[in-house]
Amino acid sequence: MAYTPIGPLFTDLYELTMAAGYYFRGMSGSATFSLFARDCTERNFFVAAGLEDVLEELSTLKFSTDDLTYLESTGLFSADFLSHLKETRFTGEVRAMPEGTIFFPDEPVLEVTAPIIEAQIVETYLLNTVGFQTLIASKAARCVHAAAGRPLIDFSLRRTQGRDGGLKVARSAYLAGFSGTSNVLAGRRYGIPVSGTMAHSFVQTFLDEEDAYSAFAEAFPENSVFLIDTYDTLEGARLAARVGTAMGQRGASLKGVRLDSGDMTGLSRQVRRILDRAGLPDVQIYASSGFDEFKISEVLDNGAPIDAFGVGTKMGVSADAPYLDVVYKLVRFDGRDVRKLSPGKVTLSGRKQVFRRSDPKGGYRADTIGLAGEQLEGQVPLLRTMMFEGKMTEPLPSLEDIRSRFRKNLSELGEDYKSLHEKKTYPVLISKKLQELQER
Amino acid sequence: MAYTPIGPLFTDLYELTMAAGYYFRGMSGSATFSLFARDCTERNFFVAAGLEDVLEELSTLKFSTDDLTYLESTGLFSADFLSHLKETRFTGEVRAMPEGTIFFPDEPVLEVTAPIIEAQIVETYLLNTVGFQTLIASKAARCVHAAAGRPLIDFSLRRTQGRDGGLKVARSAYLAGFSGTSNVLAGRRYGIPVSGTMAHSFVQTFLDEEDAYSAFAEAFPENSVFLIDTYDTLEGARLAARVGTAMGQRGASLKGVRLDSGDMTGLSRQVRRILDRAGLPDVQIYASSGFDEFKISEVLDNGAPIDAFGVGTKMGVSADAPYLDVVYKLVRFDGRDVRKLSPGKVTLSGRKQVFRRSDPKGGYRADTIGLAGEQLEGQVPLLRTMMFEGKMTEPLPSLEDIRSRFRKNLSELGEDYKSLHEKKTYPVLISKKLQELQER
Repeated sequence: MAYTPIGPLFTDLYELTMAAGYYFRGMSGSATFSLFARDCTERNFFVAAGLEDVLEELSTLKFSTDDLTYLESTGLFSADFLSHLKETRFTGEVRAMPEGTIFFPDEPVLEVTAPIIEAQIVETYLLNTVGFQTLIASKAARCVHAAAGRPLIDFSLRRTQGRDGGLKVARSAYLAGFSGTSNVLAGRRYGIPVSGTMAHSFVQTFLDEEDAYSAFAEAFPENSVFLIDTYDTLEGARLAARVGTAMGQRGASLKGVRLDSGDMTGLSRQVRRILDRAGLPDVQIYASSGFDEFKISEVLDNGAPIDAFGVGTKMGVSADAPYLDVVYKLVRFDGRDVRKLSPGKVTLSGRKQVFRRSDPKGGYRADTIGLAGEQLEGQVPLLRTMMFEGKMTEPLPSLEDIRSRFRKNLSELGEDYKSLHEKKTYPVLISKKLQELQER
Repeated sequence: MAYTPIGPLFTDLYELTMAAGYYFRGMSGSATFSLFARDCTERNFFVAAGLEDVLEELSTLKFSTDDLTYLESTGLFSADFLSHLKETRFTGEVRAMPEGTIFFPDEPVLEVTAPIIEAQIVETYLLNTVGFQTLIASKAARCVHAAAGRPLIDFSLRRTQGRDGGLKVARSAYLAGFSGTSNVLAGRRYGIPVSGTMAHSFVQTFLDEEDAYSAFAEAFPENSVFLIDTYDTLEGARLAARVGTAMGQRGASLKGVRLDSGDMTGLSRQVRRILDRAGLPDVQIYASSGFDEFKISEVLDNGAPIDAFGVGTKMGVSADAPYLDVVYKLVRFDGRDVRKLSPGKVTLSGRKQVFRRSDPKGGYRADTIGLAGEQLEGQVPLLRTMMFEGKMTEPLPSLEDIRSRFRKNLSELGEDYKSLHEKKTYPVLISKKLQELQER
C-alpha cells in the first residue's frame, strides 16, 4: 500500500518558530544534524528501523493550504514567512544506516544535511519515527534471541500506544525476526503473515466447550488453534484432544492449542502429555499472556515444551524501556562545526561516519565514529547516502530483505551483547581525526 | 477536522476467525462485552478517554472492497462469510462513562451490546483506543495535580510511540488539565493551544548567543522564550536579561526563559535572581527535561521558582506504567449471563452499571458495580447510553467540556487517592443483585 504522509505540521511548534527566526535574519546556510540514541541501561544494542517512513515523508514534504491557513490563524507568523513555507520542500541529503542494522549508543544512525530551515523542521518527525521503530525492533530482537528459533507472533495490537503504534510494532517486530502478527491491517499493508487463534469469548458463547472447538474446527479444518484455559486448562486439553482426534479421522488436522494463564511450564508439560497420549504429537502448544524476552527465556530454561509464543503488550510498548533517548543535534552549520556543552549532554561535532571492524569470521569487533570523509582500512562504513537533493538514491528494500539484513547482523554480534540481564558495552571508538576536530 | 476511520482491519485476526466460526454455526445472538481495566500498582485512579474515537469509528464501520480482497487473499475465509462481512455495520448499543470521568479498577468504563459478530470484531479497536487514551489521561492528571496550578505543556511528540500516539497524547493530556501542546498538528486537529520556545540548535547557528536571542526577539516580540542552557546557564540568563531589557525599551516584552538541564532547583533560584535584579520580575521561568509528576513535585517541594513546565517523554509514553491491563470480556450472550474462571482472571457476568455515592459536599465516597437495570438510591449512574442501534444518541461534547468534567471530577476525588507515591484503594463495592447473579 502507498505511503500516507502525515505532513509537516507533525512537528513541535518551536521548529517553526526557529525557522521563522532563521528566515527573519535571512539565514539559509546548510546544516548537518546527527540523529543518535544515548545509552540505555536496559539495552546492549539497537536495531535501526523507521528509515522507510523517513524517506517517504521527506520525499513528499509540503505544506498544504490548510496547513498554512492554520499556521496563519495562530497569529505567530508573518505572511512572508508563510509564503516561504508554501514553497518549502526537502531538498537535502540523508545518510543513514539501512533498516535492520545493529548499532550502539552515541553512533549516528542518520544524518541530515540541508538548508537550515528544512533540516530543522523535520526534527520531530525524524526523532519520533526512527526512535519509536528502533525501540520496538530492539525489544523484539531480544525476544527473538530468547526464543532460540521458536516462532513468535506479535499479539500486541490491543495495547499498543495508538493506531500507528500498532502498525509500526507489527512491522518492526517482523523486521527483527518475528514470524507474523495478529494485526490484520499490518498484514495487508506490509505483507506480514497474519495468524490468530480464538478468544475466551468464543468458548463462552457455546454452552459446551467441546462444541466450541468443534464449531471452530468446522470453519478452519487446517488452521485451528484452540484456547484451552477458559474454564479448566487440563480438561480443556482433553476436550481439544478429543476434537483433534475426530478432525484427524475426517482428514482435517488440529494445528495447536493455546495456553493463556497459569503456570506455563507445568501446564505445558501436562498438556503435552495429554496430546501425546491421544496420539497427537504434531499438535503444537502455543503460549501467550505476559510474554517478553525474560518470561520466554525463563519458561524455556525450565524446559517447558512450548512450540510458539504470542508476544503482546510488553514487546508492543517495550515495557521495560518504553522510550529511547534519541536526539537530533546540530553538528555543522554554514561551514562551521558546532558543539553543545550542556552538563552531561555533550555532542560530537562534525559530519560523521560509523565504521565497523569485524574478525575474519564476520563477528563484530569494534566500531569507530569518524568523520564523514574518512576511510578506515578494512572497516565497513555503515551510513549510506539514501537521499540526495531531496530524491531517494535507491529503491526501498523489501521488508524481507531488511529482515535478512537483521538476521545476518544478529548472527555477527557477539553472544555477550545479547545477554538479557547483563549490561555489556560494545566498544565504540572515536577516530583520531574526529577527536582532533572536537579539541579544536 | 473530520474523523478519519482506521477501518475494521485494525483488528486481531482471531476476531475475524471467531466471527467466521459464529457465522458458520449461524450464531447471531446479542452479546454484551464489558471493557474495564484491572488494578494497576502505579495508579489510584483512571481518567476515561477515547470515547470520541470509539463512537466515530463504530458509526462508520464498513469493510471496503480492498479490505475484503485482502481477506480473501489469506485463503482463510469462505466467500459466504466475506459477503456477510461486506454487509456488516455496527448496529449495536454502547453504554459508557463520558470522557473525563474518573474511574477505578474493575469498573466497566464501557459496555457494548450488539449481535455477536459485530461486538466481537470491534474488540481490538476498543481496547487499543480506550486503553491508550485512558493511560495517558491518567498519567497527565497526576502531573497536573503535582504542578498545583502551574501550567503544563505537552512536549512529548518526538518520543511518543508513533504518529497517532503523539496526537492522542496531546488530546488526552489537554483533557486532563494540561494547558497546551508543542504538537502543531494536534493544535490544528483538536484546537488545543500550541506553544513552543527554541532548541539548542537555534542558539548554535549563531556565532554569538546574545545575537541568537536578539534574532528570535525580532521575529517574536511578544512570544519569545529563550533557551538559556546551551553553553552556560547563568551566563545565558544574563544575556537573556540584557536582551529582555532591550526588548522592554522598545515596547516589546520577553515572555520567559527555559532551563533544560542541570539542577533545576538551584538554577531556577539563581536565574530568578538574575532576572529580578535586571528589573524583569514578569519574565517567567520554564523548565523541561525529564519532568513527570515525581520530578515536578520534587522541585516544587524544594521551592524551585519555576512558573511552567514542559512535560515530555515520561508523560507521553506513561513511562512508569506504559500500558493498562484493559480487557473486553463477554458477560452475556443470547440471553444468558456468562463468566470466565481462568486462574486470577475472574470476570463479573451480566450487563452492568457503575454507581457513585458522594458526600453532601460532592466528594466521592464509594462506587458500587451493579446490574444495568438497577437503581441505587442517592447514587449517580456513570454509564450512559452513547450509541443506540448504531447511531450516536447525543452530539459529541467539545474538548473544553470534557476538560471541565475532568476538572470537576478531580476536585471531587479525595486527596488520599491523588497521592503520587502511595497506593490507596478507592472503595468499589458489588451490589447485592450483581452478587446474587455471580453466585447463580
